[in-house]
Amino acid sequence: MNIPEIQKKLANFAQERNWEQFHSPKNLTMALAAETAELLEIFQWLTEEESKNLINNENEIASVKEEIADVFIYLARLATTLDIDIERAVIEKIAVNEKKYPVELSKGNATKYDKR
Amino acid sequence: MNIPEIQKKLANFAQERNWEQFHSPKNLTMALAAETAELLEIFQWLTEEESKNLINNENEIASVKEEIADVFIYLARLATTLDIDIERAVIEKIAVNEKKYPVELSKGNATKYDKR
Amino acid sequence: MNIPEIQKKLANFAQERNWEQFHSPKNLTMALAAETAELLEIFQWLTEEESKNLINNENEIASVKEEIADVFIYLARLATTLDIDIERAVIEKIAVNEKKYPVELSKGNATKYDKR
Amino acid sequence: MNIPEIQKKLANFAQERNWEQFHSPKNLTMALAAETAELLEIFQWLTEEESKNLINNENEIASVKEEIADVFIYLARLATTLDIDIERAVIEKIAVNEKKYPVELSKGNATKYDKR
Repeated sequence: MNIPEIQKKLANFAQERNWEQFHSPKNLTMALAAETAELLEIFQWLTEEESKNLINNENEIASVKEEIADVFIYLARLATTLDIDIERAVIEKIAVNEKKYPVELSKGNATKYDKR
Repeated sequence: MNIPEIQKKLANFAQERNWEQFHSPKNLTMALAAETAELLEIFQWLTEEESKNLINNENEIASVKEEIADVFIYLARLATTLDIDIERAVIEKIAVNEKKYPVELSKGNATKYDKR
Repeated sequence: MNIPEIQKKLANFAQERNWEQFHSPKNLTMALAAETAELLEIFQWLTEEESKNLINNENEIASVKEEIADVFIYLARLATTLDIDIERAVIEKIAVNEKKYPVELSKGNATKYDKR
Repeated sequence: MNIPEIQKKLANFAQERNWEQFHSPKNLTMALAAETAELLEIFQWLTEEESKNLINNENEIASVKEEIADVFIYLARLATTLDIDIERAVIEKIAVNEKKYPVELSKGNATKYDKR
């Protein structure tokens, strides 16, 4: 399934349950942020090295996978309610980032463009 | 572009800038959560109704679009670093949700399955 | 107990459990953000009116109270690790806000000072 | 100033600006989460060691101090709107944590009590 197909499936899911009343953009951003925090909770006490090694821990990866799905789901719902084309938004943002972070200025440092 | 193609483009972007050193799963969850909060900031003082009407406000929609892209970008990077297939994760999670939230029990109420 | 006394109690709690190794400022911001998200989860599907009426729901208030405590605890720990005086920080910030948001410009509108 | 005095000052600040209309518990949790994310943004690309060394960086400490104040301010406003006594909430939560995390079981490991 591509992104619009997933969005359609999720829209049907919400509609069948009469959940559109809850899915205002405002509420969906709250749900989105709540789900990203589940990811924070998984990683908060790990070192960066341990966070990389999670890839070998089947149980933990299953949890991360589920939370990534939850984040994607609410992000997709939010985009749907405001008629935003996710793929196009991402492609445009990558183009913006290429200008903000030219290779020669950004190589090996993550300083935000407006603090450089 | 489909999701894996976007992920590849983003991986190249990071590699060219030697940013892989910053992109541990731990750090990426922090960046992801920071970006979702930019969405919260846009919606925090709006009523739900106003949040729906944002669709008619070109400037605000441009901001939301950019933040949705940022969230997607970090989510995609996180999935890449842990070798998680986003599309598959989402499809599996929808299947789980269909069991947790059967239409007859969930119609018109958003109560979490474990509080029902 | 005043704020520094609470901070001292929390520092002892961490020290007795040998948890200082986990309490880097970086990790504590993650824990702090994860706890604020528990509050988002409580309120995400409620209308603003329902969120106000929660005050009459003993069970829900008990949950909110616990999450508020968790947020405070990690905020206090973060301030301790970076030797920041919370009370002074707050008083100074209120003074800054008084200048950024003078009554005559801000009355009845929540527009951020830099967008006014 | 103790916590209730700060809360009173903040309540006056909001009242003078006619901002109580925006300060529903729902909205305040969004603002709270948005502010904690400003802290994430400061720390996201730093190693844990670098996050500790920030204590020696006057500029960065000033930023952290300001964000800590912002988090405290919204937390205090939220507690006020729901008539929750922050100090009491924290003291009660510490007592709960002492039971959940007895020294002998928790020494040197940060595993959540329900995963132990």
